[in-house]
Amino acid sequence: METIRIPSIMKETSKRHLLRGKTIGFVPTMGALHEGHLSLVKRAKSENDIVVVSIFVNPTQFGPSEDFDRYPRDMEGDMEKLKREGVDILFMPDARSMYSDRFSTYITVKDLSDKLCGAFRHGHFTGVATVVCKLLNIVMPTRAYFGQKDFQQTVIIKRMTEDLNMNADLVICPTVRESDGLAMSSRNGYLSPEERRAATVIYRDILSASDLIKSGKSNPVDVKKQMHDMLKSEPLISEIQYAGVYNAETLDELNEFKKQNLLAIAVKIGNTRLIDNMLAEF
Amino acid sequence: METIRIPSIMKETSKRHLLRGKTIGFVPTMGALHEGHLSLVKRAKSENDIVVVSIFVNPTQFGPSEDFDRYPRDMEGDMEKLKREGVDILFMPDARSMYSDRFSTYITVKDLSDKLCGAFRHGHFTGVATVVCKLLNIVMPTRAYFGQKDFQQTVIIKRMTEDLNMNADLVICPTVRESDGLAMSSRNGYLSPEERRAATVIYRDILSASDLIKSGKSNPVDVKKQMHDMLKSEPLISEIQYAGVYNAETLDELNEFKKQNLLAIAVKIGNTRLIDNMLAEF
Repeated sequence: METIRIPSIMKETSKRHLLRGKTIGFVPTMGALHEGHLSLVKRAKSENDIVVVSIFVNPTQFGPSEDFDRYPRDMEGDMEKLKREGVDILFMPDARSMYSDRFSTYITVKDLSDKLCGAFRHGHFTGVATVVCKLLNIVMPTRAYFGQKDFQQTVIIKRMTEDLNMNADLVICPTVRESDGLAMSSRNGYLSPEERRAATVIYRDILSASDLIKSGKSNPVDVKKQMHDMLKSEPLISEIQYAGVYNAETLDELNEFKKQNLLAIAVKIGNTRLIDNMLAEF
Repeated sequence: METIRIPSIMKETSKRHLLRGKTIGFVPTMGALHEGHLSLVKRAKSENDIVVVSIFVNPTQFGPSEDFDRYPRDMEGDMEKLKREGVDILFMPDARSMYSDRFSTYITVKDLSDKLCGAFRHGHFTGVATVVCKLLNIVMPTRAYFGQKDFQQTVIIKRMTEDLNMNADLVICPTVRESDGLAMSSRNGYLSPEERRAATVIYRDILSASDLIKSGKSNPVDVKKQMHDMLKSEPLISEIQYAGVYNAETLDELNEFKKQNLLAIAVKIGNTRLIDNMLAEF
C-alpha cells in the first residue's frame, strides 16, 4: 500500500492511472476505521482496478463545541486494516495542505443542509460538501463510496455532484451494524458500558417504526409519536434531536407515507451524539 | 464548428478528446462577442489542440435590478465570428439544462467576493464562481481563458480553482481597448454617443493615476483623490462606485504602494455600469 500525503502528488498519481484506462474506487473517511468503512473498501475493491482510501479528520465540518480534538485517531490500526483489504493507495493529507492560509471557498447545498442534523450542526454540511468536492477533485475517482448511515450527507453530496456537473459516480452502501443492531460509528467508542447498552434502543425504535409503517394502519404522526415515546423510555438518552418520518429526497417531514420513507433519528446519550436511519417501504 | 447544447454531451465530447491526448482551450463568455473575447479565442487557438467557446448568459450572476433581460444577445453574429476564428466547439446550453428545478448548490469565495464590484453587486460573484465551476467541470479544459478587464472575477476564480483543487490552468489575457482607450465591453453598446465620448475619461483617469504612481512623488491617498477629481469633472458620470489603488491579491485598498498596484474604477454613466483596471508598477 502506497501512502500519499500531498494533494498534488495524489492527483498526478490518479491521472496516471486514469490515462492508462484504470478505474479508481475511492472511500473518503475520517479514520478510526470499523467494519462499516471496511465494507465500503471491499465494495470499491470488487468494482475498480485501483482503490484509494483517504483518512482526513476535516476540521471545517466540526463546530466549535464539537469533538474535533478528541475524535478517535488510530493511524497504525487503520493502516493495518487497509493493507489487509488490499487497498492500493492511502491518501492522508494534513490540514495545511488541504487548507492554505488564503483558503476562502465554501460550497453550500442550500435547504438540504439546514434540515435534520444540519439544524443542530450549523455549518457542518458546508464543511462536508467543501471537503468532499476537494477530495473528489484530487482523487478523481470513477466511483466514490459512502455509507448510508450518514444519509443526509449522501443526499447532499449527490445534489452537489449533480449541480456542479462533477464526474464521480456515487455508490451508497448499507449501514453495517453490531450484532445487537447498533449502527457502527467511530463515536460508539465514547460510550460507557451502560450507555452502550442503552444505545440499542435507537435501532429497535427504527425497526418498530418500520413495522408500524408496514402494518398499513398508521400515519407519520403516529409513527413519530411511537418513536419519541420509545426513546423517552430510555433514561440514558439525554436529548432527542429528531426522530420521525421524512421524504428521502427533500428530507422534509412527511405528512403521509410515500412508497419509500426515511426513518431517521439523532439522539444524545450522555455527551455522545448518535444517528441512525432506515428506508422503510409503505 | 460543432454546436453542443447539452452539458452531458459536451462533457462526453471533451472526455473523448482528452483520452486521445488532445489539449482543450476554453473561453467562457456571455456572448455579444467583441474583439476582447476574440483575443481570448485567438490565444486559446494558439495554445491548444481544440478550442471550446461557451455562450451562456448566466441568470444567477445578475441582481434583480440588473440588466439580465436586456443584456445584448447576437447569436448569429457571434457564431459567424467564432467560425472565422476556427473555433472547434460552441457550447451553448440553455438555463434549464444548467439549473435543474432542484438546483441548490452555491460556491462562495469569501472576503474577495464582498469587495470592489461585490459591494455593489450582492451575490454576483457567487453566481460567477458557481457557473464557472460548472462550466469547467463540463468542458474539462486544459486551459481556461479570462480577460483582465474583469480583474476581480479572475482573482476569485483563481482562488476557487486553487481552493477546490480543480484542474484547469487559468490564463489571464490583457484588456482589449477601443482606439480611444475605452475597454471593450458588451455593455458599451448601451451608451448614447455623448455617453460614449464621456466614457473615455475612465481610461484617461487610470493612465494619469499610473503616471502619478510612477513619478514616485505620491501616495495612494493622493492617487485616489486625483482619480475621483477627474471622474467628478465629467458631468455624465452619474455615480462613482469605486476608484483607487488596491492590493492585486487581496483587493484591499492600499495605504502604501507595493511593487504591483491595482488601479480600478467602477462608475455609472447614465444607467450603464462600466469598469476598468490596470496593474501599475511603483
